[in-house]
Amino acid sequence: MAIETPEGYRALSEHSVCGYVESVAPLRQRLGGNASAWRVREVGDGNLNLVFIIEGPAGDLCVKQALPYVRLVGEGWPLPLERAWFEHQALLEQSRHAPDLVPQVLHYDEKLFLLAMERLSPHIIMRRGMIDGLVYPRFAGQISHFLARTLYFTSDLALPAARKKAMIGRFCGNTELCRITEDLIFTDPYMVHERNRWTTPELDETARELRQDAALKLAVARLKLRFMSDAQALLHGDMHTGSIMVTEAETKVIDPEFAFVGPIGFDVGKLLGNLLLSYFSQRGHETRPGERDAYRAWILETVREVWDGFEREFLALWRAHPTGDAYPAMLFEEPADAAALGEERSRYMRALFQDALGFAGTSMIRRTLGLAHNADMEEIAEPARRAACERRNLRLARELIVHAADFADIARVTQRAAALEQES
Amino acid sequence: MAIETPEGYRALSEHSVCGYVESVAPLRQRLGGNASAWRVREVGDGNLNLVFIIEGPAGDLCVKQALPYVRLVGEGWPLPLERAWFEHQALLEQSRHAPDLVPQVLHYDEKLFLLAMERLSPHIIMRRGMIDGLVYPRFAGQISHFLARTLYFTSDLALPAARKKAMIGRFCGNTELCRITEDLIFTDPYMVHERNRWTTPELDETARELRQDAALKLAVARLKLRFMSDAQALLHGDMHTGSIMVTEAETKVIDPEFAFVGPIGFDVGKLLGNLLLSYFSQRGHETRPGERDAYRAWILETVREVWDGFEREFLALWRAHPTGDAYPAMLFEEPADAAALGEERSRYMRALFQDALGFAGTSMIRRTLGLAHNADMEEIAEPARRAACERRNLRLARELIVHAADFADIARVTQRAAALEQES
Repeated sequence: MAIETPEGYRALSEHSVCGYVESVAPLRQRLGGNASAWRVREVGDGNLNLVFIIEGPAGDLCVKQALPYVRLVGEGWPLPLERAWFEHQALLEQSRHAPDLVPQVLHYDEKLFLLAMERLSPHIIMRRGMIDGLVYPRFAGQISHFLARTLYFTSDLALPAARKKAMIGRFCGNTELCRITEDLIFTDPYMVHERNRWTTPELDETARELRQDAALKLAVARLKLRFMSDAQALLHGDMHTGSIMVTEAETKVIDPEFAFVGPIGFDVGKLLGNLLLSYFSQRGHETRPGERDAYRAWILETVREVWDGFEREFLALWRAHPTGDAYPAMLFEEPADAAALGEERSRYMRALFQDALGFAGTSMIRRTLGLAHNADMEEIAEPARRAACERRNLRLARELIVHAADFADIARVTQRAAALEQES
Repeated sequence: MAIETPEGYRALSEHSVCGYVESVAPLRQRLGGNASAWRVREVGDGNLNLVFIIEGPAGDLCVKQALPYVRLVGEGWPLPLERAWFEHQALLEQSRHAPDLVPQVLHYDEKLFLLAMERLSPHIIMRRGMIDGLVYPRFAGQISHFLARTLYFTSDLALPAARKKAMIGRFCGNTELCRITEDLIFTDPYMVHERNRWTTPELDETARELRQDAALKLAVARLKLRFMSDAQALLHGDMHTGSIMVTEAETKVIDPEFAFVGPIGFDVGKLLGNLLLSYFSQRGHETRPGERDAYRAWILETVREVWDGFEREFLALWRAHPTGDAYPAMLFEEPADAAALGEERSRYMRALFQDALGFAGTSMIRRTLGLAHNADMEEIAEPARRAACERRNLRLARELIVHAADFADIARVTQRAAALEQES
């Protein structure tokens, strides 16, 4: 049974995409010549969309088109085409705050739900690089800059209330993609659900214990409620190492189709969680014990620098641009106010840190016991070895969720990760 | 300079409203006969709108029309007509959950931004009744029922996420009315602002101290941020004793034009704050000391019963209708889950209680040091006497905001109010 689509929509193929691109002058000119001279590849390895890379004599570009269903699953799981509109809106907003860290948008087609963007080359998906043990020395600085700027400037700390509310309104229709997060991250892994999978039978008992862990389930439910109701800032919404393309010099954040106004800690935490999961997966990629010690150390250093860099820059932005209707600057002009406001900012960042740890933990669990797993672990062929890595990952995840308040700073988190990695 | 209004809009007068009502068959029929037999009075004592009461041979009704500016101030303070649309939407939603506690809507005109409703008679504005020392024995039970049901059933605890997001979207355009709250409640009273006024010179020093009170200002700023970003449930948005009409038997909540999706504690707290302000105002209405002792005791009993009744019913609804995407029922079906979930609900209510106390405090301050004052205090003719009442009110307000966590329950709040009332 085919899904109904709006008039004017048709899914493009490697053939038809060239005809389309030819009809859009700026895109045609970017490629040079005409379609007969272009090389097209569909590269959408992902779960949701068609992605075409088109190369011409003068240049290249990337075309991303939404399909009316989840590609990974098929027509049995319909998904609104409008997510392309939300992705476009989010890219425009992010490019205002961190233009060097997102792909340049060349064209948006509202009938085809299609985005044409610069092609990122030689960038690769960061997750791939981390599985291969590649170091990205500039990553932590660049991504913390992206997070601090996109999240600060779309928060009530920077925006007048009316603009913030307009932003909430613009993105609150992205319901179905939020629902994927609500179900797959915050719900399914904690119950018996046909969508769940894990390394079996090795993790059967662990998965069962987790479904009976009332303290964990309540802490996750609390985070889910925050996700659904706490409209702090415009989030990327799917901020993991699969949504980041890198070279040694550059970082580009892609695929913000899950964008909506939600809790800041969700973006930050999802990234930290995916880095920590990569950390625990490294042993599975070693051809001899200790081979990846230095790489592991780099990952933990990156975790620390991502948080510390984010916190430092977010606070600096708050001090430099207190332009929002929250904590209005004109209320804090008395001499005694400066110190008190400084303490309040620290308190705010402390709460944000705890949020981030909790959300990090939920990402680590869903990638181990839920529907969508990460290649970081999946590519560990031997089940017992993979399960050992996954078990360590799950242990830290639970601690981050249930005992977030016990971690005084990010160094305690990386110390704990290292200790768990040593234990067995 | 006249404010531009949309085509088709015209402000009605006592004369033209009858012609309009005649043209709407159900309204005409309700009144009986024709306009020549009707009696019209404009009774909008309020700050924002035109309100007509029309009586005919067969029945009566109330017509409320938005003006394109704040009536209290004039055309210098424009205000969107669309607030009538939000009021209508909110009334429809509230009537689903508490039909006996809101006026029945008879008609909405989207071009005139006009609502026709049942006329409430012999109901009076509750604030008026409290100034006159009238007891409303059924009020606490009825209003706590209204609060519990309207707030629970529009929260993530009861709603699927998609319906909740649609509700956020429907109300997030009510920006200008939210801004009134953001400015007049959470900002102006804490700074030098031409809109502020107070009993002068008696409270000059108190107002000055408050502007230098960093702990208070930060606590208020935190509440303001919650107001702007925490989308817990559909609020009435202006839940004070001036938005409630009562008889001894009935309670009706009117005027939800400030409706939007915000923190639950704001509605509950605004009501508690206005009751407490009325409590502190009573001494100013005594013709001999102690004359209102019994009435004061009734107010404090009402404060306790409003909170306790709200909490009891909200929790009962949560247990009986866990239909929302927050704390999904299917995650908590293990035997050990029930107790843990019970504790979590208590924790949730505890947080909500602290929110309510903070918001109560901000209401008590804005009505003493900001633009809009309450008749409760304003009708105390002698300034020194009024100032003494206001000073007690401000003391409790500050404690509720800065030390909310120190109040274990609502009884501690009313004990503290009584102690302050005794002190001087």
